[in-house]
Amino acid sequence: MRILIIGGDGYLGWPTAMHFAQRGHEVAVLDNMIKRRWESELGVAPLWPIATLTERAQALRETTDREVEVFVGDVADKSVVRGVLSRFLPEAIVHYGEQPSAPFSMIDAEHAILSQANNVLGTLQLAFAMHDIVPDAHLIKLGTMGEYGTPNIDIEEGYLEIEHNGRRDRLPFPKSPGSFYHLSKVHDSHNLMFAAKLWNLRITDLNQGVVYGTTTDETAMDPRLATSFHYDEYFGTVINRFVAQAVAGMPLTVYGAGGQKRGYLNIRDTLQCVEIAAMNPASAGEFRVFNQFTEQFTIDELANLVVEAAAKQGIRAEKKSIPNPRMELENHHYNARNSGLIALGLQPHRLTVDVLAGMIAWAAQHPERISRDVIIPTVQWRKQPEGVREA
Amino acid sequence: MRILIIGGDGYLGWPTAMHFAQRGHEVAVLDNMIKRRWESELGVAPLWPIATLTERAQALRETTDREVEVFVGDVADKSVVRGVLSRFLPEAIVHYGEQPSAPFSMIDAEHAILSQANNVLGTLQLAFAMHDIVPDAHLIKLGTMGEYGTPNIDIEEGYLEIEHNGRRDRLPFPKSPGSFYHLSKVHDSHNLMFAAKLWNLRITDLNQGVVYGTTTDETAMDPRLATSFHYDEYFGTVINRFVAQAVAGMPLTVYGAGGQKRGYLNIRDTLQCVEIAAMNPASAGEFRVFNQFTEQFTIDELANLVVEAAAKQGIRAEKKSIPNPRMELENHHYNARNSGLIALGLQPHRLTVDVLAGMIAWAAQHPERISRDVIIPTVQWRKQPEGVREA
Repeated sequence: MRILIIGGDGYLGWPTAMHFAQRGHEVAVLDNMIKRRWESELGVAPLWPIATLTERAQALRETTDREVEVFVGDVADKSVVRGVLSRFLPEAIVHYGEQPSAPFSMIDAEHAILSQANNVLGTLQLAFAMHDIVPDAHLIKLGTMGEYGTPNIDIEEGYLEIEHNGRRDRLPFPKSPGSFYHLSKVHDSHNLMFAAKLWNLRITDLNQGVVYGTTTDETAMDPRLATSFHYDEYFGTVINRFVAQAVAGMPLTVYGAGGQKRGYLNIRDTLQCVEIAAMNPASAGEFRVFNQFTEQFTIDELANLVVEAAAKQGIRAEKKSIPNPRMELENHHYNARNSGLIALGLQPHRLTVDVLAGMIAWAAQHPERISRDVIIPTVQWRKQPEGVREA
Repeated sequence: MRILIIGGDGYLGWPTAMHFAQRGHEVAVLDNMIKRRWESELGVAPLWPIATLTERAQALRETTDREVEVFVGDVADKSVVRGVLSRFLPEAIVHYGEQPSAPFSMIDAEHAILSQANNVLGTLQLAFAMHDIVPDAHLIKLGTMGEYGTPNIDIEEGYLEIEHNGRRDRLPFPKSPGSFYHLSKVHDSHNLMFAAKLWNLRITDLNQGVVYGTTTDETAMDPRLATSFHYDEYFGTVINRFVAQAVAGMPLTVYGAGGQKRGYLNIRDTLQCVEIAAMNPASAGEFRVFNQFTEQFTIDELANLVVEAAAKQGIRAEKKSIPNPRMELENHHYNARNSGLIALGLQPHRLTVDVLAGMIAWAAQHPERISRDVIIPTVQWRKQPEGVREA
């Protein structure tokens, strides 16, 4: 199958590209490297230096004899996206090419608007290009479980059967996202639900939970094939952040009460889910939604697990509650369905203490690389108006 | 009260500005005249030539001794919106400043992306500026009934009480909009719901039905104070379009089966609703939603009413079904609540045959001004891919 990975230079994009290439698919990646630039601007970096995308593709060729074709450009640029689709004619498109951080989107007006413009308009440009050039291709779009927020009812997969005043309909599940980033994904979902119906496109929306993990089968083959491990306040997801804090001898910073419950999955399962989606395409005209996570934890439960795993590695870690920089409920109902991908064969990797201990051992190879200054949150969801901000 | 009207040069914006000025409020308008440029690009024009915004403000001063302050600029431009808010310090902001046409948004990728960028990013820029400069002001934002689509359940005002698996919550009403324009309003609603909660802003979202009408108390005072009457496929709403077709001796073109049911209101009631909202502001932190329409009709019912009204004016009109350019159900359940504004005192102007006859008489003063070429729809929701479009 010819598979195009948009955002193929990222934490998930590059491992996904290698995963498909190793299974004999014809793979191309498209990336404009904007995330590397954002990292520079914010003064953060992955725990390990990451080779350029071109170097990675070369290393993959040397290591495995597999080819990944590299396109450099912006999916929001009409001529770029149309050029790539016309030349590569993908049968499946995995779209990771969005600004992926909630705190980034909450820095200020510029970053909020940049996040929504980049994500929503880029995805629109892609949908129009698919309609014109590869209308039968299958779009696999990464959404987020954060689109749903934390409603007081169980979360279903994309849709909800509603009875009201004696009548019934199956409607989009109501969304209550908690940042301008999460909002951009909600906008994408609405746009793509319409586009699928309008143009008979095949679209799968993967509402992904929080991903953790350092390694996949392919990243482990050669140091040059490693994927970026972020532990900073912008791009570091919570488990990866706790692991880095344990290694750096810092307390594990729990935001607020720690009762925030979310869905989580191992990076290996991201690859498995995306592959399952690709091998079982949505029907023409279908906007299919899967909730992509394997387990649910509260922040406090995660901190406890990391403390236990650190002890196994001879590290004494402790958790510490800090004021919550976000606007979110800290104790709430959370029960989300994730049966769609399981039914198609997903075999979850569970988050065990041993898995966490392995991550800690991995990060502890070079503890001096961890910058302690970039972990503690500085972006506050609720901030003083600019006009009255203290100097 | 100091009231800022964004999009104050438009069909509704200008009458709204005059309405508040006549009632003794301090009024400013902000507009970048982009809609006049879009009209030129598309080759359409209002039925009557419209004075410039500056001329209109001058004419209002001469006619009534009322002042409307004119700001020219783009709400999506950070320095513009912050400059205007800092200088005028509005207590209420009525935001009409968006691309208002579904067919415009469905022309092609450029127009879809332009519509979403203009509407969603402009409104975001405004929300951030309010937070920083006038956090206690009341934002009255124009949404559309089209955000809901035509679900098979009754439509409530913004929220829905949902019971699911034995638990309950009040959640945003699920949205199923039918164009990239309508989608932009859904995105606005989600962004503003979050912003209200995040920053304790006061926001009223008016999900407006289809507006008809030629005249308000203030537009009737002087020809230079007239508002734009559009009857073209882009900016002409259906009743105004039928009136123009009757006057031009064309059949009233009903899209498809004509069973499409929607909410409608007279332009005079738009002014009344916006005034009611302004005089009864939302609470701090509240995202309040009203459905702003007074009556529900099917397209076929409207065509019959216009035929009857035309006969009263000695014009023999007939309706004619044409293939539906849109993607929409043509026979469906439709029952939307609109009790919020009624409870606050809205006194509806009903769509009677006499009201329609008055509109026909108004348009018939210069039938030669009606361009027959711009009424029949050319924008198709479902079009051939560009790659295979015939030359």
